[in-house]
Amino acid sequence: MDMDYKKYIADVPDFPEPGVMFRDISPLMCDGQAYAAATDEIAAYAKSKGTEMIVGPEARGFIVGCPVAYKLGVGFAPARKKGKLPRETVSVTYDLEYGQASLYMQTDAVRPGQKVLVVDDLMATGGTLAATIKLVEELGGIVVGTAFLIELTELGGRDKINEYDMFTLMKY
Amino acid sequence: MDMDYKKYIADVPDFPEPGVMFRDISPLMCDGQAYAAATDEIAAYAKSKGTEMIVGPEARGFIVGCPVAYKLGVGFAPARKKGKLPRETVSVTYDLEYGQASLYMQTDAVRPGQKVLVVDDLMATGGTLAATIKLVEELGGIVVGTAFLIELTELGGRDKINEYDMFTLMKY
Repeated sequence: MDMDYKKYIADVPDFPEPGVMFRDISPLMCDGQAYAAATDEIAAYAKSKGTEMIVGPEARGFIVGCPVAYKLGVGFAPARKKGKLPRETVSVTYDLEYGQASLYMQTDAVRPGQKVLVVDDLMATGGTLAATIKLVEELGGIVVGTAFLIELTELGGRDKINEYDMFTLMKY
Repeated sequence: MDMDYKKYIADVPDFPEPGVMFRDISPLMCDGQAYAAATDEIAAYAKSKGTEMIVGPEARGFIVGCPVAYKLGVGFAPARKKGKLPRETVSVTYDLEYGQASLYMQTDAVRPGQKVLVVDDLMATGGTLAATIKLVEELGGIVVGTAFLIELTELGGRDKINEYDMFTLMKY
């Protein structure tokens, strides 16, 4: 495909804090053609990896991952913040630039041996990605790949998870 | 369709607080067949209404609405909580049982005259739904219908928005 996805990304300086250039995916999601094209590309990658389940972190990971799950005819399981998921969960706590964050998944979200694709909108430092992978593996899932709309290459997130295959539509 | 969707809903007593029976949609989302069937039913309804855009509130509204948008080839715009959306937004504040909540949408998320379907996982008191409808209409969008996996009929939410058509897969 040769769609110019970057023209659907709004660059927002100093959001959510000064010095950060936020890459806003909203215009891409609002455009039916661009959203479908991006979904189809990630779904083709997911299929090539034998994906049986999609897992995405709250909340933009849902927007990217859910249509991919639908396209493949597989399920979607969210990785969520504290207090959002009922029933039995597993959790992981990881470091942010300032402080820590935790992610949770339900214990029946992924079956042992299930082939899982981890999806999010953007890969920056890789912290959220590494945490999500850890949850999937704690449940016995096999992470067959990871996929993102956007990769911020300067932050070196890819190095943090270099034993996993990664597919990205755009690099900055 | 005659899929028994309720067998994919986990009933969780006393979540998120004592006395509340939480209807957990996770098992439905984790099952590729059930997720696809639910998506197809909502998409057929959306198509019958001439839907040109899907809007869903954070965060389970994304899980329900995004594959419907993909299926129709239309865009998806989120209604989100404070501080989540960059760029220019409109907002609405509404009453909860205790306190208030606010929802935001980006001003370029919906075009004037665009036919919008508002989607969420569950319709209870209708507060979030009414707020999301208000945002769409403030942007000039035309709400052609609303769709949910689950309607809690005893809470009377439907009365709050009875001038809008509503489609639900399950009632409790």
